[in-house]
Amino acid sequence: MKENAMIFEDKINNWDEVTDVVVIGSGFAGLSAAIEAYEAGASVIVLEKMKASGGNSIISDGGIAAPGTNLQKKYGINDSADMMYKDMLKAGLCLNVPELVRVLVDNAKDTFKWSIDYLGVEYLDRVDIFGGHSVPRCYTAKNVSGSTIIKKQIEKMNEFNMKVRFKSCSKNLIYSSDEIICGVVVRDDYDYKNPEKGRDINVKANKGVILASGGFGSDVAFRKAQDPRLIEKIDTTNKPFATAEVIKQAINAGAAPIQLSHIQLGPWASPDEKGYGDGPQFSEYIVFQYGVIINPVTGCRFVNELSDRKTLSDKLLSIGHPCIGLADVKAVENSGWNIDRCIKKKVVRKYDTLEELASFYKIPFKKIEETLKEFNKSFEEGADKSFGKPLIENAAPIVNPPYYGIRLWPKVHFTMGGIRINTDAQVIDLEGNIIKGLYAAGEVTGGVHGASRLGSCSITDCLVFGRIAGKNAANISTK
Amino acid sequence: MKENAMIFEDKINNWDEVTDVVVIGSGFAGLSAAIEAYEAGASVIVLEKMKASGGNSIISDGGIAAPGTNLQKKYGINDSADMMYKDMLKAGLCLNVPELVRVLVDNAKDTFKWSIDYLGVEYLDRVDIFGGHSVPRCYTAKNVSGSTIIKKQIEKMNEFNMKVRFKSCSKNLIYSSDEIICGVVVRDDYDYKNPEKGRDINVKANKGVILASGGFGSDVAFRKAQDPRLIEKIDTTNKPFATAEVIKQAINAGAAPIQLSHIQLGPWASPDEKGYGDGPQFSEYIVFQYGVIINPVTGCRFVNELSDRKTLSDKLLSIGHPCIGLADVKAVENSGWNIDRCIKKKVVRKYDTLEELASFYKIPFKKIEETLKEFNKSFEEGADKSFGKPLIENAAPIVNPPYYGIRLWPKVHFTMGGIRINTDAQVIDLEGNIIKGLYAAGEVTGGVHGASRLGSCSITDCLVFGRIAGKNAANISTK
Repeated sequence: MKENAMIFEDKINNWDEVTDVVVIGSGFAGLSAAIEAYEAGASVIVLEKMKASGGNSIISDGGIAAPGTNLQKKYGINDSADMMYKDMLKAGLCLNVPELVRVLVDNAKDTFKWSIDYLGVEYLDRVDIFGGHSVPRCYTAKNVSGSTIIKKQIEKMNEFNMKVRFKSCSKNLIYSSDEIICGVVVRDDYDYKNPEKGRDINVKANKGVILASGGFGSDVAFRKAQDPRLIEKIDTTNKPFATAEVIKQAINAGAAPIQLSHIQLGPWASPDEKGYGDGPQFSEYIVFQYGVIINPVTGCRFVNELSDRKTLSDKLLSIGHPCIGLADVKAVENSGWNIDRCIKKKVVRKYDTLEELASFYKIPFKKIEETLKEFNKSFEEGADKSFGKPLIENAAPIVNPPYYGIRLWPKVHFTMGGIRINTDAQVIDLEGNIIKGLYAAGEVTGGVHGASRLGSCSITDCLVFGRIAGKNAANISTK
Repeated sequence: MKENAMIFEDKINNWDEVTDVVVIGSGFAGLSAAIEAYEAGASVIVLEKMKASGGNSIISDGGIAAPGTNLQKKYGINDSADMMYKDMLKAGLCLNVPELVRVLVDNAKDTFKWSIDYLGVEYLDRVDIFGGHSVPRCYTAKNVSGSTIIKKQIEKMNEFNMKVRFKSCSKNLIYSSDEIICGVVVRDDYDYKNPEKGRDINVKANKGVILASGGFGSDVAFRKAQDPRLIEKIDTTNKPFATAEVIKQAINAGAAPIQLSHIQLGPWASPDEKGYGDGPQFSEYIVFQYGVIINPVTGCRFVNELSDRKTLSDKLLSIGHPCIGLADVKAVENSGWNIDRCIKKKVVRKYDTLEELASFYKIPFKKIEETLKEFNKSFEEGADKSFGKPLIENAAPIVNPPYYGIRLWPKVHFTMGGIRINTDAQVIDLEGNIIKGLYAAGEVTGGVHGASRLGSCSITDCLVFGRIAGKNAANISTK
């Protein structure tokens, strides 16, 4: 059988198992879907290719966005679904599918509440604002980790005696003779480092199959075909198993792929550590706000350091090699952040003089001296005349040793594109028709975030559309 | 049989016709492919769904780009393949597939020469520069029309006793049992306004099928799925039959679609005429260079009018309604262009006073007066402080009546995304493997132009990759 190909039921010799709903993936979206499908009376099998639940969701920082919440009221923040809608479309450069954004913002508040009242997730008593949101509307799960939410979802599954089936990888979607998705060929005892291992079993889904397999940030071949800049040496903040096999299975089954080439990079990442790491705390909250980014070859700045993620990442990639984020001790103090961890890890480096820092990063000293002089004039002149960086309230000239440096090189963070769905989380084919029996939610889908996703909107996306997919898979007749 | 679905040879009862190579489409790419396949010894059938040859190519302005030509030497222009490579990647925001751009620029000069020496195309004795090219490298076919090139290609076909088969629309690609593309189901006597008409015939292609069916600029449903802004009320410069059915057939046959959401809009277009029209002569060569663009609701400018196509189009779309391009008589005179045709067509309107113009377009008069005053100060101050528009050499304050206005609203012009190919014009599947027997060239493919195509690079693309596809379909064994 061809890898990732769609197949017809008449090629299936026997069904090894039968259930109502099969969910592929056990991250935020998949578990939300499974819980709702169960609550709607369906029997459910959740497939997880790895040895543990949670997929890429467990390494998220657990931030979820919602407008009009009680927590916002408590802190006197005026917000609405309409405001969040506008923010998402602005960030997405209006490439977002408007009706999907509408569903997300209209359901965000209730879904956030559901995560508290129904799942029992606890959040920190604060409301944060991240770049691109017009007001604070981001809530952070305790322990600042997505695993806090996943854990509660798993507890709910346990209550229902549902289990995530580990080492179970989807291989092919199965069509019935009347062109309804009716099952999945599953590689049982799957090992993603040794895909030949295990055996194939056929699982019948009487009501529907839900794709909740996440994005493809770690799939170098697939992402590079869509954005040729994203070659192997571009690292990712994702887990290594964030690959495209289920997206390919869906496309081969007729699903329309949309906006696959819109892939978000994190410009705050350092090549001196793996994954998301600790460096972003220094680069995003100190360098971008108070410091400068220097091209080590020229010793010059090249961008407004407070530009959006996409602008910064594109600039760095076009320069072609890591650049140096620089700040002084006063910036670190004014920011209020402790960066000991970054320094201990040698991701951020500390130097008593600018000469030493320049020498370490091989930056021409005269040049970097001129660059800082020029930048520091901004504070007299009231504006950064070179790159128009806004001067934030307690920013100051960079003149106070010690100096801190970090190497910056973008990492693939999120894949905005994916499988096309409608507002019922049903998968849509190339002709614009519904593929009966097939649903999708979360990062595997495309169109919700357009050209660029706002921070903390992914968990909202996964919970809102995961729940919709679960309910509908259990309730919508495929006949 | 499902529309646009891929099918297997074993479902085919009989082959109505057998040939070596089937070419789908009779524009620049398709005819180049057919001629080369014939020259390589293959028998060829060219399918054209319309009643005449040339597809969308015949309404192109016949401009082709190539570096290092004799015509450049004659005019003392220094150029190289490397310079053109850099220009294309810069315009494409480096989303271009580098190796495809390399093939294009390395073959452009010889292919341009081939069009003269072999096809007999005559070009105007001039070399032009269009936005984004770093030197003049664009040659324009006589009559300033793509039909000049198509006519010569058809003459060559006639020499070889080859005919384009009209009203013949590809419906399904056919796979052999060993997974080689081996033929096409063709709707014979096809009528695109009445697709039920005609009958299906099966054409076997012993050596290969070449997709050269063009872009999908007129396919509202398909383009809107990729870029939700491009709804029906956004017109296109394309012919109405520039639709996606062959792209869908290819995807359904396993071909990887890439960068489909990168769709180029022309910001120089007017909603007061159909298609490309005459207005762009005024807007692109007079308004953008000498004049201003005004939001009629506010009476204000909102952009540097000499921004690239993508920036201008995105700004207009985000404003959400047509805006007014404005210039005075001095700008028209200084430009050297005759705009009588635009005025006669009422696409451009002429007013003796600014009040009259403001009144016609419902622009608050006080506001537009202030806006022009502000803009005119640029000439004293030596810079457009509001939007940074470069002041070109013979530009002047806008103070001389009569005043000219045009309504501007972007039109879909070119689809950069499409089917993935390798440098041999072979179609690549989602796993990165070659689909044996399947080739593609021209606008149906994706990746050559990245995020944005430079003017006059499309004909080069079509001829270069059309020729490669034709040669390889005839020569590469599918066994």
